[in-house]
Amino acid sequence: MKRIVAMMTLAAAAATPLAAQAQFAKPEDAVKYRKSAFSVMGTHFGRIGAVVKGERPYDKAAVELDAAAVEFMSKLPWQAFGPGTDAGETKAKPEIWKEQDKFRAAADKMTAEVSKLSAAARSGDQAMLKAAFGNAAQSCKACHDNYRNK
Amino acid sequence: MKRIVAMMTLAAAAATPLAAQAQFAKPEDAVKYRKSAFSVMGTHFGRIGAVVKGERPYDKAAVELDAAAVEFMSKLPWQAFGPGTDAGETKAKPEIWKEQDKFRAAADKMTAEVSKLSAAARSGDQAMLKAAFGNAAQSCKACHDNYRNK
Repeated sequence: MKRIVAMMTLAAAAATPLAAQAQFAKPEDAVKYRKSAFSVMGTHFGRIGAVVKGERPYDKAAVELDAAAVEFMSKLPWQAFGPGTDAGETKAKPEIWKEQDKFRAAADKMTAEVSKLSAAARSGDQAMLKAAFGNAAQSCKACHDNYRNK
Repeated sequence: MKRIVAMMTLAAAAATPLAAQAQFAKPEDAVKYRKSAFSVMGTHFGRIGAVVKGERPYDKAAVELDAAAVEFMSKLPWQAFGPGTDAGETKAKPEIWKEQDKFRAAADKMTAEVSKLSAAARSGDQAMLKAAFGNAAQSCKACHDNYRNK
């Protein structure tokens, strides 16, 4: 039980975007960290997408695992958008640091949609899953459109 | 509670190394995935290391979060060492695919040590934390020595 609490504590704490800016020794470490976290998240999100699009058979347990991984990973990257991490090998747009409140709201929107996706995955309702996936994908896209260079 | 079960289910399922070999469309996707997962894990592990070495003040809550992240991430990479993922931008040695049982045992050892590290972090006992960190670091190193090119 303690272990579970620790997990949930992590999720809650990490859900505060931009919180732990001093966690990285060098800006490039932060950039690598957030890219890695998004990459792992994207892999699991993509697997659910394949199911939703009918490219992959529906397997409730597998979808649940992928959604849980997406949800967990979605909490992590935000701590790595601290000051000075706008340079180097990154597609992050300067707007992130110019409009922190809007960026944070977009991040919160995504984590909320991803949490709903996880709930939908657990429900076993495929129509609900499809709708939740669409909403989550839209929240990813909105942030990418505004804050990520192509 | 269901959410927690899903998290634990993920951990248990992903703890079966090499299980989901068909999860990646291309070998390079698997390579990128495992590198990303190890990278995120390494960041959180390194933060605990800094505490253990006295380079960073001890903060029980922070250490717990980092240990929980390490534990979660430690389950993920193994699915991405499937056949054909021994090429490309990887430091993985061919021995991984030649001695799967030994590699799997080394992976299991690491995930077990990392789980103990998480327990030690929750205990609040700094001597226990230091010992568990050392054992976990040793399990990382053993695998790197045998299975990762410099």
